[in-house]
Amino acid sequence: MQNNNMQNTEGVIQLAIRAFEGQCNRLTKWLSAVSDEVLLEEVAPGKNTGLYLLGHLVAINDGMLPLFDLGKREYPELDDVFVMVPDKSVSHHYTPRQVKDLWLRHTDLLISKLSELSSAEWLHRHSSVSEEDFIQQPYRNKLNVLLNRTNHLAYHIGQLALLKRG
Amino acid sequence: MQNNNMQNTEGVIQLAIRAFEGQCNRLTKWLSAVSDEVLLEEVAPGKNTGLYLLGHLVAINDGMLPLFDLGKREYPELDDVFVMVPDKSVSHHYTPRQVKDLWLRHTDLLISKLSELSSAEWLHRHSSVSEEDFIQQPYRNKLNVLLNRTNHLAYHIGQLALLKRG
Repeated sequence: MQNNNMQNTEGVIQLAIRAFEGQCNRLTKWLSAVSDEVLLEEVAPGKNTGLYLLGHLVAINDGMLPLFDLGKREYPELDDVFVMVPDKSVSHHYTPRQVKDLWLRHTDLLISKLSELSSAEWLHRHSSVSEEDFIQQPYRNKLNVLLNRTNHLAYHIGQLALLKRG
Repeated sequence: MQNNNMQNTEGVIQLAIRAFEGQCNRLTKWLSAVSDEVLLEEVAPGKNTGLYLLGHLVAINDGMLPLFDLGKREYPELDDVFVMVPDKSVSHHYTPRQVKDLWLRHTDLLISKLSELSSAEWLHRHSSVSEEDFIQQPYRNKLNVLLNRTNHLAYHIGQLALLKRG
Protein backbone atom coordinates (compact mmCIF):
# COMPACT_ATOMS: atom_id res chain seq x y z
CA MET A 1 0.00 0.00 0.00
CA GLN A 2 1.66 3.21 -1.13
CA ASN A 3 1.37 6.60 0.44
CA ASN A 4 -0.69 8.22 -2.31
CA ASN A 5 -3.19 5.37 -2.12
CA MET A 6 -3.62 5.94 1.62
CA GLN A 7 -4.71 9.52 1.09
CA ASN A 8 -7.91 8.59 -0.68
CA THR A 9 -11.15 6.85 0.06
CA GLU A 10 -9.93 3.51 -1.23
CA GLY A 11 -7.00 3.55 1.18
CA VAL A 12 -9.28 4.22 4.12
CA ILE A 13 -11.61 1.40 3.10
CA GLN A 14 -8.62 -0.91 2.90
CA LEU A 15 -7.76 -0.07 6.53
CA ALA A 16 -11.24 -1.16 7.61
CA ILE A 17 -11.02 -4.41 5.61
CA ARG A 18 -7.60 -5.12 7.14
CA ALA A 19 -9.01 -4.52 10.63
CA PHE A 20 -11.77 -7.08 9.94
CA GLU A 21 -9.29 -9.59 8.53
CA GLY A 22 -7.06 -8.98 11.55
CA GLN A 23 -9.83 -10.01 13.93
CA CYS A 24 -10.65 -13.08 11.81
CA ASN A 25 -6.98 -14.11 11.82
CA ARG A 26 -6.82 -13.58 15.55
CA LEU A 27 -9.70 -16.01 16.10
CA THR A 28 -8.27 -18.53 13.62
CA LYS A 29 -4.93 -18.47 15.45
CA TRP A 30 -6.64 -18.84 18.82
CA LEU A 31 -8.66 -21.83 17.53
CA SER A 32 -5.50 -23.59 16.39
CA ALA A 33 -4.36 -23.72 20.03
CA VAL A 34 -7.64 -24.66 21.74
CA SER A 35 -8.87 -28.22 22.27
CA ASP A 36 -12.33 -29.44 21.30
CA GLU A 37 -13.03 -30.17 24.97
CA VAL A 38 -12.28 -26.59 26.03
CA LEU A 39 -14.62 -25.24 23.34
CA LEU A 40 -17.45 -27.12 25.05
CA GLU A 41 -16.89 -25.15 28.28
CA GLU A 42 -18.71 -21.98 29.27
CA VAL A 43 -16.64 -18.77 29.04
CA ALA A 44 -17.88 -17.90 32.55
CA PRO A 45 -20.24 -19.83 34.87
CA GLY A 46 -23.72 -19.94 33.35
CA LYS A 47 -22.68 -18.04 30.21
CA ASN A 48 -22.28 -19.11 26.58
CA THR A 49 -20.01 -22.00 25.60
CA GLY A 50 -17.10 -21.53 23.22
CA LEU A 51 -18.94 -23.75 20.73
CA TYR A 52 -22.01 -21.51 20.76
CA LEU A 53 -19.97 -18.33 20.34
CA LEU A 54 -18.01 -19.81 17.46
CA GLY A 55 -21.16 -21.03 15.68
CA HIS A 56 -22.69 -17.61 16.30
CA LEU A 57 -19.72 -15.85 14.69
CA VAL A 58 -19.81 -18.08 11.59
CA ALA A 59 -23.54 -17.42 11.22
CA ILE A 60 -23.15 -13.64 11.60
CA ASN A 61 -20.25 -13.52 9.13
CA ASP A 62 -22.33 -15.66 6.78
CA GLY A 63 -25.08 -13.06 6.90
CA MET A 64 -22.72 -10.53 5.30
CA LEU A 65 -22.83 -12.40 1.98
CA PRO A 66 -26.43 -11.51 1.04
CA LEU A 67 -26.20 -8.19 2.90
CA PHE A 68 -23.30 -7.18 0.63
CA ASP A 69 -24.86 -8.67 -2.54
CA LEU A 70 -22.15 -11.32 -2.62
CA GLY A 71 -24.42 -14.30 -3.04
CA LYS A 72 -26.60 -16.53 -0.91
CA ARG A 73 -25.73 -17.63 2.60
CA GLU A 74 -23.60 -20.74 2.86
CA TYR A 75 -24.97 -22.04 6.16
CA PRO A 76 -28.38 -20.48 6.88
CA GLU A 77 -29.27 -23.47 9.06
CA LEU A 78 -26.81 -22.26 11.71
CA ASP A 79 -29.26 -19.53 12.76
CA ASP A 80 -31.67 -22.04 14.31
CA VAL A 81 -28.97 -23.16 16.74
CA PHE A 82 -26.57 -20.23 17.15
CA VAL A 83 -28.52 -17.01 16.55
CA MET A 84 -32.28 -17.31 17.07
CA VAL A 85 -32.04 -19.19 20.36
CA PRO A 86 -29.82 -18.97 23.44
CA ASP A 87 -27.09 -21.51 24.08
CA LYS A 88 -28.16 -24.89 25.50
CA SER A 89 -31.83 -24.33 24.60
CA VAL A 90 -32.04 -26.75 21.66
CA SER A 91 -30.36 -30.08 21.02
CA HIS A 92 -28.14 -30.18 17.94
CA HIS A 93 -25.49 -32.31 16.31
CA TYR A 94 -22.69 -29.74 15.83
CA THR A 95 -19.32 -30.73 17.27
CA PRO A 96 -16.45 -28.34 18.05
CA ARG A 97 -14.46 -29.87 15.18
CA GLN A 98 -17.26 -29.30 12.68
CA VAL A 99 -17.81 -25.69 13.71
CA LYS A 100 -14.07 -25.00 13.66
CA ASP A 101 -14.00 -26.32 10.08
CA LEU A 102 -16.98 -24.15 9.17
CA TRP A 103 -15.18 -21.09 10.58
CA LEU A 104 -11.99 -21.81 8.61
CA ARG A 105 -13.76 -22.49 5.33
CA HIS A 106 -16.20 -19.63 5.63
CA THR A 107 -13.55 -17.09 6.60
CA ASP A 108 -11.47 -17.94 3.52
CA LEU A 109 -14.53 -17.56 1.32
CA LEU A 110 -15.69 -14.33 2.92
CA ILE A 111 -12.29 -12.59 2.83
CA SER A 112 -11.98 -13.55 -0.81
CA LYS A 113 -15.45 -12.24 -1.66
CA LEU A 114 -14.95 -8.98 0.23
CA SER A 115 -11.96 -8.25 -1.99
CA GLU A 116 -14.32 -8.21 -4.99
CA LEU A 117 -16.14 -5.09 -3.80
CA SER A 118 -15.15 -1.74 -5.29
CA SER A 119 -14.94 1.42 -3.19
CA ALA A 120 -18.19 2.62 -4.75
CA GLU A 121 -19.87 -0.63 -3.70
CA TRP A 122 -18.55 -0.35 -0.13
CA LEU A 123 -20.13 3.09 0.11
CA HIS A 124 -23.42 2.00 -1.42
CA ARG A 125 -26.34 0.80 0.71
CA HIS A 126 -26.43 -2.74 2.04
CA SER A 127 -29.26 -4.95 0.90
CA SER A 128 -31.51 -4.51 3.92
CA VAL A 129 -31.78 -0.72 3.44
CA SER A 130 -34.21 0.61 0.84
CA GLU A 131 -33.14 3.21 -1.70
CA GLU A 132 -35.49 5.70 -0.05
CA ASP A 133 -34.08 5.16 3.44
CA PHE A 134 -30.53 5.32 2.13
CA ILE A 135 -31.08 8.82 0.77
CA GLN A 136 -31.95 9.95 4.30
CA GLN A 137 -29.40 7.73 6.05
CA PRO A 138 -26.37 7.53 3.74
CA TYR A 139 -24.14 6.11 6.48
CA ARG A 140 -26.05 2.82 6.21
CA ASN A 141 -23.59 1.48 3.70
CA LYS A 142 -21.68 -1.79 3.53
CA LEU A 143 -18.56 -0.31 5.09
CA ASN A 144 -20.50 0.71 8.18
CA VAL A 145 -21.80 -2.85 8.54
CA LEU A 146 -18.24 -4.15 8.24
CA LEU A 147 -17.03 -1.81 11.02
CA ASN A 148 -19.87 -2.93 13.27
CA ARG A 149 -19.30 -6.61 12.52
CA THR A 150 -15.60 -6.22 13.27
CA ASN A 151 -16.46 -4.87 16.72
CA HIS A 152 -19.01 -7.65 17.25
CA LEU A 153 -16.30 -10.17 16.41
CA ALA A 154 -13.82 -8.53 18.81
CA TYR A 155 -16.48 -8.48 21.55
CA HIS A 156 -16.93 -12.25 21.39
CA ILE A 157 -13.21 -12.97 20.90
CA GLY A 158 -12.71 -11.19 24.23
CA GLN A 159 -15.12 -13.69 25.80
CA LEU A 160 -13.57 -16.72 24.09
CA ALA A 161 -10.15 -15.62 25.36
CA LEU A 162 -11.36 -16.38 28.89
CA LEU A 163 -11.42 -20.11 28.12
CA LYS A 164 -8.35 -22.06 29.05
CA ARG A 165 -6.03 -22.77 26.15
CA GLY A 166 -4.16 -25.97 25.61
CA MET B 1 -24.39 13.54 7.07
CA GLN B 2 -25.41 13.98 3.44
CA ASN B 3 -25.00 11.50 0.65
CA ASN B 4 -22.33 13.40 -1.25
CA ASN B 5 -20.28 13.68 1.93
CA MET B 6 -20.40 9.90 2.38
CA GLN B 7 -18.77 9.34 -0.99
CA ASN B 8 -15.50 10.92 0.05
CA THR B 9 -12.70 10.27 2.47
CA GLU B 10 -14.11 12.52 5.15
CA GLY B 11 -17.36 10.59 5.19
CA VAL B 12 -15.56 7.30 5.61
CA ILE B 13 -13.44 8.69 8.45
CA GLN B 14 -16.64 9.87 10.14
CA LEU B 15 -17.97 6.29 10.06
CA ALA B 16 -14.89 5.11 11.94
CA ILE B 17 -15.20 7.89 14.54
CA ARG B 18 -18.88 7.05 15.01
CA ALA B 19 -17.98 3.39 15.53
CA PHE B 20 -15.52 4.36 18.27
CA GLU B 21 -18.03 6.69 19.91
CA GLY B 22 -20.62 3.93 19.69
CA GLN B 23 -18.44 1.56 21.71
CA CYS B 24 -17.68 4.30 24.27
CA ASN B 25 -21.39 5.01 24.64
CA ARG B 26 -22.11 1.34 25.01
CA LEU B 27 -19.71 1.08 27.94
CA THR B 28 -21.01 4.30 29.53
CA LYS B 29 -24.55 2.95 29.35
CA TRP B 30 -23.50 -0.38 30.80
CA LEU B 31 -21.70 1.37 33.67
CA SER B 32 -24.82 3.33 34.55
CA ALA B 33 -26.54 0.02 35.36
CA VAL B 34 -23.77 -1.78 37.21
CA SER B 35 -23.09 -1.52 40.94
CA ASP B 36 -19.71 -0.73 42.46
CA GLU B 37 -19.72 -4.14 44.14
CA VAL B 38 -20.18 -5.98 40.88
CA LEU B 39 -17.27 -4.06 39.31
CA LEU B 40 -15.02 -5.58 41.99
CA GLU B 41 -15.86 -9.10 40.79
CA GLU B 42 -13.83 -11.11 38.30
CA VAL B 43 -15.40 -11.47 34.84
CA ALA B 44 -14.65 -15.21 35.06
CA PRO B 45 -12.98 -17.23 37.84
CA GLY B 46 -9.34 -16.19 38.17
CA LYS B 47 -9.58 -13.54 35.42
CA ASN B 48 -9.52 -9.73 35.52
CA THR B 49 -11.96 -7.76 37.66
CA GLY B 50 -14.34 -5.24 36.16
CA LEU B 51 -12.41 -2.50 37.99
CA TYR B 52 -9.13 -3.51 36.37
CA LEU B 53 -10.64 -3.68 32.90
CA LEU B 54 -12.28 -0.28 33.28
CA GLY B 55 -9.05 1.34 34.55
CA HIS B 56 -7.22 -0.36 31.68
CA LEU B 57 -9.64 1.10 29.12
CA VAL B 58 -9.32 4.64 30.53
CA ALA B 59 -5.52 4.34 30.42
CA ILE B 60 -5.48 3.03 26.83
CA ASN B 61 -7.90 5.74 25.65
CA ASP B 62 -5.75 8.28 27.47
CA GLY B 63 -2.74 7.13 25.47
CA MET B 64 -4.47 8.30 22.28
CA LEU B 65 -4.03 11.96 23.28
CA PRO B 66 -0.25 12.16 22.78
CA LEU B 67 -0.37 9.53 20.02
CA PHE B 68 -2.68 11.81 18.03
CA ASP B 69 -0.82 15.04 18.95
CA LEU B 70 -3.81 16.14 21.02
CA GLY B 71 -1.88 17.06 24.15
CA LYS B 72 -0.42 15.31 27.15
CA ARG B 73 -1.99 12.37 28.91
CA GLU B 74 -4.53 13.20 31.59
CA TYR B 75 -3.89 10.22 33.86
CA PRO B 76 -0.46 8.67 33.10
CA GLU B 77 -0.34 7.28 36.65
CA LEU B 78 -3.04 4.73 35.72
CA ASP B 79 -0.48 2.69 33.76
CA ASP B 80 1.31 1.55 36.93
CA VAL B 81 -1.88 -0.13 38.15
CA PHE B 82 -3.92 -0.99 35.04
CA VAL B 83 -1.49 -1.50 32.14
CA MET B 84 2.05 -2.41 33.18
CA VAL B 85 1.05 -5.03 35.73
CA PRO B 86 -1.62 -7.75 35.89
CA ASP B 87 -4.72 -7.33 38.01
CA LYS B 88 -4.35 -7.95 41.75
CA SER B 89 -0.54 -7.72 41.63
CA VAL B 90 -0.16 -4.30 43.27
CA SER B 91 -2.14 -2.60 46.02
CA HIS B 92 -3.77 0.66 45.01
CA HIS B 93 -6.39 3.13 46.20
CA TYR B 94 -8.70 3.28 43.18
CA THR B 95 -12.37 2.58 43.90
CA PRO B 96 -14.99 1.58 41.32
CA ARG B 97 -16.66 4.97 41.76
CA GLN B 98 -13.43 6.86 41.08
CA VAL B 99 -12.60 4.87 37.98
CA LYS B 100 -16.17 5.21 36.68
CA ASP B 101 -15.81 8.98 37.07
CA LEU B 102 -12.46 8.92 35.27
CA TRP B 103 -14.08 6.99 32.40
CA LEU B 104 -16.95 9.46 32.08
CA ARG B 105 -14.76 12.57 32.24
CA HIS B 106 -12.07 11.21 29.95
CA THR B 107 -14.49 9.95 27.33
CA ASP B 108 -16.10 13.38 27.07
CA LEU B 109 -12.71 15.01 26.68
CA LEU B 110 -11.42 12.47 24.17
CA ILE B 111 -14.51 12.53 21.92
CA SER B 112 -14.34 16.32 21.91
CA LYS B 113 -10.63 16.33 21.03
CA LEU B 114 -11.03 13.73 18.29
CA SER B 115 -13.48 16.05 16.56
CA GLU B 116 -10.67 18.60 16.18
CA LEU B 117 -8.69 16.41 13.78
CA SER B 118 -8.98 17.08 10.06
CA SER B 119 -9.13 14.27 7.49
CA ALA B 120 -5.54 15.03 6.52
CA GLU B 121 -4.49 14.67 10.15
CA TRP B 122 -6.34 11.36 10.53
CA LEU B 123 -4.40 10.01 7.56
CA HIS B 124 -1.07 11.33 8.78
CA ARG B 125 1.27 9.26 10.91
CA HIS B 126 0.69 8.90 14.63
CA SER B 127 3.38 10.21 16.95
CA SER B 128 5.14 6.90 17.62
CA VAL B 129 5.96 6.34 13.93
CA SER B 130 8.94 8.17 12.43
CA GLU B 131 8.63 10.04 9.16
CA GLU B 132 10.99 7.52 7.55
CA ASP B 133 8.95 4.50 8.68
CA PHE B 134 5.72 6.16 7.63
CA ILE B 135 6.93 6.46 4.03
CA GLN B 136 7.34 2.68 3.96
CA GLN B 137 4.26 1.92 6.09
CA PRO B 138 1.66 4.57 5.21
CA TYR B 139 -1.16 2.62 6.87
CA ARG B 140 0.36 3.49 10.27
CA ASN B 141 -1.82 6.57 10.53
CA LYS B 142 -4.07 7.83 13.30
CA LEU B 143 -7.19 6.36 11.75
CA ASN B 144 -5.68 2.88 11.84
CA VAL B 145 -4.93 3.30 15.55
CA LEU B 146 -8.53 4.38 16.12
CA LEU B 147 -9.86 1.28 14.36
CA ASN B 148 -7.61 -0.96 16.45
CA ARG B 149 -8.50 0.80 19.68
CA THR B 150 -12.20 0.47 18.87
CA ASN B 151 -11.75 -3.29 18.56
CA HIS B 152 -9.71 -3.40 21.76
CA LEU B 153 -12.54 -1.59 23.53
CA ALA B 154 -15.16 -3.99 22.12
CA TYR B 155 -13.00 -6.97 23.18
CA HIS B 156 -13.03 -5.89 26.83
CA ILE B 157 -16.67 -4.76 26.76
CA GLY B 158 -17.48 -8.34 25.79
CA GLN B 159 -15.70 -9.50 28.95
CA LEU B 160 -17.32 -6.87 31.19
CA ALA B 161 -20.72 -7.94 29.87
CA LEU B 162 -20.23 -11.27 31.64
CA LEU B 163 -20.51 -9.58 35.03
CA LYS B 164 -23.89 -9.61 36.63
CA ARG B 165 -25.77 -6.34 36.30
CA GLY B 166 -27.42 -4.99 39.35
